[in-house]
Amino acid sequence: MKRFIMWALVMFFISTTFAQQALWGDAHVVSPEIHKDHTVTFRIRAPKAVKVEITGDFPAPQQIQTSNGKSYVPGKVQLKEGIGGVWEYTTSEPLASELYIYSFIVDGQRTIDPASVAMVRDVATVSSLFIIPGDPGDLYSVSDVPHGTVARRWYDSPTLKEQRRITMYTPPGYENSKESYPIFYLLHGSGGDEEAWVSLGRTAQILDNLIAQGKAKPMIVAMPNGHTQNAAAPGESSRNYTPAMGGGPRKAEASMEDSFGDIMKFVESNYRVKKSKTYRAIAGLSMGGMHSAAISAQYPNTFDYVGVFSAPPIAGLMTRNNLNSVKAVDEFVKKLQVQQKNGPKLYWIACGDTDFLYQSVMDSMKKMDEIGFNYSYRESSGGHIWKNWRIYLSEFVPMLYK
Amino acid sequence: MKRFIMWALVMFFISTTFAQQALWGDAHVVSPEIHKDHTVTFRIRAPKAVKVEITGDFPAPQQIQTSNGKSYVPGKVQLKEGIGGVWEYTTSEPLASELYIYSFIVDGQRTIDPASVAMVRDVATVSSLFIIPGDPGDLYSVSDVPHGTVARRWYDSPTLKEQRRITMYTPPGYENSKESYPIFYLLHGSGGDEEAWVSLGRTAQILDNLIAQGKAKPMIVAMPNGHTQNAAAPGESSRNYTPAMGGGPRKAEASMEDSFGDIMKFVESNYRVKKSKTYRAIAGLSMGGMHSAAISAQYPNTFDYVGVFSAPPIAGLMTRNNLNSVKAVDEFVKKLQVQQKNGPKLYWIACGDTDFLYQSVMDSMKKMDEIGFNYSYRESSGGHIWKNWRIYLSEFVPMLYK
Repeated sequence: MKRFIMWALVMFFISTTFAQQALWGDAHVVSPEIHKDHTVTFRIRAPKAVKVEITGDFPAPQQIQTSNGKSYVPGKVQLKEGIGGVWEYTTSEPLASELYIYSFIVDGQRTIDPASVAMVRDVATVSSLFIIPGDPGDLYSVSDVPHGTVARRWYDSPTLKEQRRITMYTPPGYENSKESYPIFYLLHGSGGDEEAWVSLGRTAQILDNLIAQGKAKPMIVAMPNGHTQNAAAPGESSRNYTPAMGGGPRKAEASMEDSFGDIMKFVESNYRVKKSKTYRAIAGLSMGGMHSAAISAQYPNTFDYVGVFSAPPIAGLMTRNNLNSVKAVDEFVKKLQVQQKNGPKLYWIACGDTDFLYQSVMDSMKKMDEIGFNYSYRESSGGHIWKNWRIYLSEFVPMLYK
Repeated sequence: MKRFIMWALVMFFISTTFAQQALWGDAHVVSPEIHKDHTVTFRIRAPKAVKVEITGDFPAPQQIQTSNGKSYVPGKVQLKEGIGGVWEYTTSEPLASELYIYSFIVDGQRTIDPASVAMVRDVATVSSLFIIPGDPGDLYSVSDVPHGTVARRWYDSPTLKEQRRITMYTPPGYENSKESYPIFYLLHGSGGDEEAWVSLGRTAQILDNLIAQGKAKPMIVAMPNGHTQNAAAPGESSRNYTPAMGGGPRKAEASMEDSFGDIMKFVESNYRVKKSKTYRAIAGLSMGGMHSAAISAQYPNTFDYVGVFSAPPIAGLMTRNNLNSVKAVDEFVKKLQVQQKNGPKLYWIACGDTDFLYQSVMDSMKKMDEIGFNYSYRESSGGHIWKNWRIYLSEFVPMLYK
């Protein structure tokens, strides 16, 4: 029988060539083509186009001068038109091992690579992606190792008076074990949601791979939505979606810090997690880094591991010339003093050397030095980008629960 | 403190206007705008464009004449350029309640709606989407009702000698109960993967809503990947992705029917499911419909509920002029006779009246009539499209486990 189902399906496809084209794009164009030497060729068929460019993580961002200093804009390269209206560009140098996201810009119109099935959604933007093998690219790839489970669940938040969506990673074997596991709360940035760490952050792949290599303890990772004005990512909630700072019909009724107890309660009553400080970690990027600092200070004897990625632990220092801010900083420093007495095992601050928050991170650490707060600092090159956040996650996780 | 994090974030956003634009598109263009009378206005800023069109579920498909008969291509409408290079189109009539997917075509280049955050991925294609409220649109919407969990898990298939990805829906309350639940295996079509039923199929929303309305029993839904040559959706597996009929480095080592036992074993040993025929259902669309017929015939006393959506239960009839096919049909009819003796409670065939598989569905039912096979038939208008598959799912689920 199965041979005939196959036959029938071939007939099916012949009769739906139109649908097939819609699904698979143009079969004759190969893009991206990763060559053996790790140079990459990009191709897109666009016979009517006047100008075709690539932008994204590749090519590298360009520095520009603005009224308040230096800033970065995404790099762009131009493709050249060849036979049959296929535009092409090959990198002049091999690319370093990394996960790259990119888009084409065809006469000003952004589009993903029609020839590639690999894509990723970042809130409202979909981009194509490819991985150059090696270190760290292999760590971000789906490998032939046991895989954990990624679940989208809903928890009740009495503080915010609603059901909210959360992404949960459970390690390989969790479902068929009676064991309890350490718990890691991992928070996204302002331009993200509960999908961010599992999409661009590659959390499931990084955890699967580090656990398989024996470099990380099997752990549960809870990735909530850190925007209290939204219950979920775009399209996933019954309320209209409100962009991060775009205002909207509903104001946040409480902050992420105030409502964090609801998340912990959900996790601890729905998962087999170890309920002690020794087995609790919290970290986040950008806004999520500020959240991690604020939450671990508000619950000062709860987390033995705190990670603040690309953000000043003392958020008030970002507006340090403001009188109210001075007061807020003082109040927060008092909280830090309490937290320091309880002695977290690891308070890890990481920042890129061209991050636009670099100075406020430096200012935070100076203030923390003044009160003898015990932290570690990791500086990488580059700015406020996912490349750095994947590195920080990959380095932070192996240090946990030791 | 929380006020100062807010303040800091405002500063953050002012300093990253570039990033914000990339995330939120152009804040001044509203699209799609659903008016009170359910007409819809679409807008896109494309000052350099010569021609801008919309295509998708909306506007309606157009019939064309091909060498082997009539066929359908997606409908298109043209937008008109207005002030500031913003192109606009408003429907002349209100749209019926439904979930619509659409894209813009800017000078031949397909793009999602840059002003909308609502989008859906169908294998390798991302489209924008909107829902017109009412019946059935409300059933496809995230409502303020208890939500089930959607998990991406991996199961071991000894038959296919690999780990394979599966999407699991568990109903609201599953995790905090000791109860056992009925199980529903739901299979995608040839142009789909283990994501299809939860993305375009809206399975989680339909189930959440029907359960909340008391119209469906709480049940577990297992949505495996039906392409045995792939282990998972594009980008989710350690092997290169092979498009449905595109060939590739690895051939399927066994069929979906042969390996289905591995899926049942995984589900029954990892979930609290009722392990009797009375509480087992299987259904699928197109290729998944053929799979459902073939699997329920191969395990002839296992499922009391079988749904075959937009597909001939007797797949061999699609190539009915072929000698081998005649033999295959005869063999399958013998299996159906065994299945009929065991008496499934519901064998539900559904098809659209313009589906390109319509005739083979009719031929199948004629053959089944000849052997006195007991089935129900539901005919809807339209073709081989998700609109119909959502309707079939919404009608099939309330009939289960009664």
